[in-house]
Amino acid sequence: MSDVNPVALPTVRRLPLMLRHIQEHIAAGDGYISSSLLAKELLMDPILVRKALAATGVVGVPRLGFPARELERSILAFLGWDSMTDAVLCGVGNMGRALLGYQGFQQYGLRIVAAFDIDPALVGKRINRIEVYPVRRMKQLIERMAVRIGIVTVPADVAQSVVDAMIGAGIRGVWNFTPFKLIVPDGVVVQRVDLASSLAVLSHQLAMTGAKQ
Amino acid sequence: MSDVNPVALPTVRRLPLMLRHIQEHIAAGDGYISSSLLAKELLMDPILVRKALAATGVVGVPRLGFPARELERSILAFLGWDSMTDAVLCGVGNMGRALLGYQGFQQYGLRIVAAFDIDPALVGKRINRIEVYPVRRMKQLIERMAVRIGIVTVPADVAQSVVDAMIGAGIRGVWNFTPFKLIVPDGVVVQRVDLASSLAVLSHQLAMTGAKQ
Repeated sequence: MSDVNPVALPTVRRLPLMLRHIQEHIAAGDGYISSSLLAKELLMDPILVRKALAATGVVGVPRLGFPARELERSILAFLGWDSMTDAVLCGVGNMGRALLGYQGFQQYGLRIVAAFDIDPALVGKRINRIEVYPVRRMKQLIERMAVRIGIVTVPADVAQSVVDAMIGAGIRGVWNFTPFKLIVPDGVVVQRVDLASSLAVLSHQLAMTGAKQ
Repeated sequence: MSDVNPVALPTVRRLPLMLRHIQEHIAAGDGYISSSLLAKELLMDPILVRKALAATGVVGVPRLGFPARELERSILAFLGWDSMTDAVLCGVGNMGRALLGYQGFQQYGLRIVAAFDIDPALVGKRINRIEVYPVRRMKQLIERMAVRIGIVTVPADVAQSVVDAMIGAGIRGVWNFTPFKLIVPDGVVVQRVDLASSLAVLSHQLAMTGAKQ
């Protein structure tokens, strides 16, 4: 559906939330859903909702709205969530453990197939059924399993070298949970989730409103 | 330090990463650090780094740079990370468990003092030494402990009502891990961490580069 017009990233960011609402309507037995209702539920500008729905390529029916199941299928396919994508995780520290233990990634089509750490005490352990391997085996295993997504939860000082090794082994999408801006070659994409920055803004805004003790 | 000029949020977002680098320099024995070196290490525009350092109120020394320990102290105080701030968490599902188990919040001055869930099977359990209480006790405990930060990890359909209850009990800062845009009154701040949106963008960009299988 994005062959002709590339879809803007803000539109892509809105799709998971729209998908969730559409799935709730389907669960409630609704066959069709209107863009104006969706906009109201999502507290979004109706123009932005119509733009996102247009990106799915699904055609609305006058007076009825968009066929809900068709919308769901189209968004799932667009996001690649209609099939499982394998990922590896490097760095089984606090954040790594939390992500390995998180059971929610399956609904987004993400399956972590292996974890890596340099600590011999962790190697061989399983967290949420995912085995921890030594980092020296990372290249071989990424290549053998043809994994394309790498989750980075290592300490700051080794983040870049770990990502370099991942990319050398075939990783093309990096989910960066470190606070560091990683350097990657063209053709490799990075998304950063920075809890520290998010919390910094929250703490600072709280302090500004005078509400923080 | 922000009494006169409010500091822009993008600057606030940069501070945790700058802090980390400054702490590494201190650990390496450096007494001073220059804004140009910091900019180079952080891959940031030197102008933005100087702006952030100016926000700390610390004065640089010509030819030497900024006194590292003074910078550290000033940033920690600015972010409120020099003392512990209590928080409660509501929703001990997958995401809630992951956050309760995450040991990294202490370094950001955040201490989760209680968790809440409606599931009787979870009530009374401890995760990472944090006790799970029934949701009906939330108001009373938030008030008694005078907690100001609430972490929301409940399912979509109850997110707004949980936040309303939190705010009614005195919560003034909401860390929202649901994909939903929450409605809060003036004076209450919200920061959202949306893993689904981040993963959606990563999946989509991977698909666009043709690297995803």
